[in-house]
Amino acid sequence: MSQYQHIKQKAYEANMQLPKLGLVLFTFGNVSAADRELGVFAIKPSGVPYEELTPEMMVIVDFDGKTVEGSKRPSSDTQTHAVLYKKWPKIGGIVHTHSTFGTAWAQSQRAIPIFGTTHADHLTCDIPCAPPMSDEMIQGNYEYETGFQIINHFESQDLDYEEVEMVLVGNHAPFTWGKTADKAVYNSAVLETVAHMAYLTEQINPNAPRLKDALVKKHYERKHGPDSYYGQS
Amino acid sequence: MSQYQHIKQKAYEANMQLPKLGLVLFTFGNVSAADRELGVFAIKPSGVPYEELTPEMMVIVDFDGKTVEGSKRPSSDTQTHAVLYKKWPKIGGIVHTHSTFGTAWAQSQRAIPIFGTTHADHLTCDIPCAPPMSDEMIQGNYEYETGFQIINHFESQDLDYEEVEMVLVGNHAPFTWGKTADKAVYNSAVLETVAHMAYLTEQINPNAPRLKDALVKKHYERKHGPDSYYGQS
Amino acid sequence: MSQYQHIKQKAYEANMQLPKLGLVLFTFGNVSAADRELGVFAIKPSGVPYEELTPEMMVIVDFDGKTVEGSKRPSSDTQTHAVLYKKWPKIGGIVHTHSTFGTAWAQSQRAIPIFGTTHADHLTCDIPCAPPMSDEMIQGNYEYETGFQIINHFESQDLDYEEVEMVLVGNHAPFTWGKTADKAVYNSAVLETVAHMAYLTEQINPNAPRLKDALVKKHYERKHGPDSYYGQS
Amino acid sequence: MSQYQHIKQKAYEANMQLPKLGLVLFTFGNVSAADRELGVFAIKPSGVPYEELTPEMMVIVDFDGKTVEGSKRPSSDTQTHAVLYKKWPKIGGIVHTHSTFGTAWAQSQRAIPIFGTTHADHLTCDIPCAPPMSDEMIQGNYEYETGFQIINHFESQDLDYEEVEMVLVGNHAPFTWGKTADKAVYNSAVLETVAHMAYLTEQINPNAPRLKDALVKKHYERKHGPDSYYGQS
Repeated sequence: MSQYQHIKQKAYEANMQLPKLGLVLFTFGNVSAADRELGVFAIKPSGVPYEELTPEMMVIVDFDGKTVEGSKRPSSDTQTHAVLYKKWPKIGGIVHTHSTFGTAWAQSQRAIPIFGTTHADHLTCDIPCAPPMSDEMIQGNYEYETGFQIINHFESQDLDYEEVEMVLVGNHAPFTWGKTADKAVYNSAVLETVAHMAYLTEQINPNAPRLKDALVKKHYERKHGPDSYYGQS
Repeated sequence: MSQYQHIKQKAYEANMQLPKLGLVLFTFGNVSAADRELGVFAIKPSGVPYEELTPEMMVIVDFDGKTVEGSKRPSSDTQTHAVLYKKWPKIGGIVHTHSTFGTAWAQSQRAIPIFGTTHADHLTCDIPCAPPMSDEMIQGNYEYETGFQIINHFESQDLDYEEVEMVLVGNHAPFTWGKTADKAVYNSAVLETVAHMAYLTEQINPNAPRLKDALVKKHYERKHGPDSYYGQS
Repeated sequence: MSQYQHIKQKAYEANMQLPKLGLVLFTFGNVSAADRELGVFAIKPSGVPYEELTPEMMVIVDFDGKTVEGSKRPSSDTQTHAVLYKKWPKIGGIVHTHSTFGTAWAQSQRAIPIFGTTHADHLTCDIPCAPPMSDEMIQGNYEYETGFQIINHFESQDLDYEEVEMVLVGNHAPFTWGKTADKAVYNSAVLETVAHMAYLTEQINPNAPRLKDALVKKHYERKHGPDSYYGQS
Repeated sequence: MSQYQHIKQKAYEANMQLPKLGLVLFTFGNVSAADRELGVFAIKPSGVPYEELTPEMMVIVDFDGKTVEGSKRPSSDTQTHAVLYKKWPKIGGIVHTHSTFGTAWAQSQRAIPIFGTTHADHLTCDIPCAPPMSDEMIQGNYEYETGFQIINHFESQDLDYEEVEMVLVGNHAPFTWGKTADKAVYNSAVLETVAHMAYLTEQINPNAPRLKDALVKKHYERKHGPDSYYGQS
C-alpha cells in the first residue's frame, strides 16, 4: 500500500464534497491535500468525472510540482497548488472551483465587499481579487505564475494567508485554502454564499455601507480570537 | 430520563427542518424550544453539524441565559434567545438563520416592503429591520444586546411581537419566533420567500407600490382574524 | 365509494405535482378538477400540508361554491374556482400558486411581455395582469370577486380563456386553468419558467423588443393551429 | 433488431441527460445522434415526456429530413438538425434546449460576451447570437430555415463550427453540437453556466471588460491546442 494513502483518501473525500455542495459543474474544480512532513500533496487527476473518481487515482506531487506517484496526469492547476504550498508553510489543503457567484465577482474584477456578519465570521476584510496577470506571465508558465499572482497580491495588500483563506483571481475564479483540505472546501462554500449575498445586497441597496469596524472585530473574534466562544472547545 | 426531554426533542426536530428547507449552510443557524412552566429552553449546541445532531445534545438554558443541563456549549446566540424569551412571555420558539435573501436585505439595512398577499397572509406591515447596534452595545455583551436591539426596535416602531413574528437585524441576519419552535421555523421559511419575491419585485418594477390597505387587512384576517377561514378549525 | 372518486383522485394527483415542480412552499397553492356533467369540482382542503394529503380529503363543491361532499373545509380560494368554472364552460381544472417569479410579476403589477418562442409556444400575447381589486370588491365576498376580476379583465382586454390559460392577479399571484387539472398544472409551470426568463431578459437588455408577429404566429400554430405538428397525434 | 440500434441508444442516453442537468422543463428540448456512414440520425420523438422515453421510440431520419424508421413523429425541430448535419460534415450530435439563462440571452438578442476563463476553456469568442429570421423565412419551411439562419450567421461572422460548438437563435433559444451527442449535451450545460455567469458579471460590474487576448488564447490551448495538457491523453 502507498505511503501516501492517507492524503489520497483525504483528497478524494474533499474532492467529492464539491459536487455535493453545488460548487462544480462536470470537472471544473479540484482539491489537494498535503502531508507537510513528506513534502507532498495528493491532487485530483485532470478531467476525470467525479462519479468515476477513486482514492487510488489521486496523483502525488511534490512542492516543486513534480509528480512523485500516480499513473494519471494531475490537475492542470497543479503548479498553482505547488507554489502556494511551497510559499505558505502552514496550509494543508487547497481548493479551486468555478463556482457561479464567486466566478462572477472574479470576472467583474472586484473584491467582494464585507457587508455583514456572515462574511465577518470568516474574515475581517473584503475577499481580495488579484488583478489579471500580465501577458508575460500568461505566456510563460501560466499555472505557476497564477500561484505567484496570488502571493504577490497578498503581499502588496499586506494580507496574512492564515487569516484570509480565500482569493479571487481576476477574470478567472476562486481559490481557497486552509489547515486541512476539509477546511479549504468549507471556505469554498463560504465564499460562494458570501458572494451570492453581496451581489444581492448591492442590487437591493446600491448604497449599502460596509460593515462597521466594531461588528467586524466582534464577529471574527467570536469564532477566531483567543477568547472565541463558537463551537465546542 | 431528563425532565426536559420533550423540549430537547422539539428543538432537535425543529433544527433539523432548517437544512431541509434550504435555510442554512453548514451550522449557520439555530432553533430553540421553550417550556414556559419550567422557565427554560432547549437550544442547539454551538458549531455541531446538522448530520451529527441528536436530541440528547440539546442544551437546556434558563431565561437569564444560564445553562441548566447539558454537556455541550450552547449556541453562541443563546443570550439573544434568552432575552427574547424573558421579555416576550408568549413565545415558545425562536429561530436564527443566515438565509440568503433575508440576510441580503439585512445587509442592505432595509425593511422588506409589503408588496403582495403572500406577505400580507403573515403580517400587516413591512418586515422590520433593526438598525446596526452602537459600538458600545457591540463591545459589551454582544448577543445579549442583540436581543435588546430587537426589542427596542419593536418598541420604537410600536410593533407587537405577537403580530409581527420576524425581524432583520441590520448587517446581520433574520430572527423569527412563534408560539412553538415549529411555527418559528415556518416563519423563517416565509421570511425567506417573501424576501426573494420583494427583491424580484423591485427589479421588475422599481416603482412597484406597496400593497393597498384593504388587501393587507383582508388577507391577514383570512388567516388570523376572529373570523378567519383559512385551514381546518 | 363516492361517485366523485374519479375527480378526487385527479385533483389529488394534480395537487401533488405542485411541490414536485417547485411551485409551492408549504400550503401556498391549490388545484381543482371538475366533472362538467355532475356540475361539481374536487378541490384541496384548506391548509393541509401536501405530505398529509390523501384523495379522500378532497372536498366536492358545486359551481355556486357550495360544498356537496367532504368533511374538511375547502381551500380558502374555492369561490374563485367556482366563479371561473361557472363562467367558462370549457375548463376542467384550475390551479392557484404563489410561485416565486410569477408572484413577483403580479406584485409588480405588470403583464409579462412576450419575448420569445418559449412564451409563444403557449400563448400569442403578454401574460395578462388583472389590476388590484377595488376596495369595495375586497371588502365584499373577496374570493368570489377575485374570480370576477379575472373575468372582467379578460373581457376588457378581449382575451379568449381557451387561448390564454393563465393570468396574474395584481399584488396577488398567478391563476392558470385548462381542459384538465393536469393541463392547468402544466400551465402553472410554464408561467413560472416564462416569468423567470422574461425577468432575466429585461435585466440583460432593458430594450429587448417583443417577439415579432410572424414568430408569434408560427410558434403558436406549431403547437395549436389546425396544422399543428408538435407531439404525437 | 434495428441496424440503427446503436444511435437510438446514444440518442436516448443523451436525451435523458437533459433533465438530470436541469436544462429542460417538460419536453422543451431534444438531442439527436448521427451515424455518418449510414447517413442518418436518431432523434427524440415529439412531445414525449422524458420519464416515458425508451431507446426504441427514437426516430431515424436522413440528412434531408426524411423519416427512415420509427412509428412516432420526430421532434418538431428535426429539419433544423437535418440541415446542420448536411452542411457540417464533422458533427455527430446536436442539442436544442430552452435552458433558462441561455434562452434569456437569446431573447435579449445579444451574443454572450467572453468575460472569463470558464468561457475561454471552451471557445475563443463571444457565444454568437443569430438574428431573428426574416418573415419570409418564418412563413416558409421554418425549422429548415432555422438551420440556415445558424449556418448563415456562422458564415457572415467567419466562425468555424468545429471551434464554436454553440449558438443562440435570437428570440428563440440555444443550439449546441459536437463530435458526439454526449459532447453536444456537455456543450449545452457549459453554455447555460457561462450564460448565468455572464449575466451576473454585468450586474456586478456594468463596465466589466472582455477577457484579454492572452488569457483567451492560453485557456483555449490548455484544453484544445496541439500542446493541450488538460484531461488524460
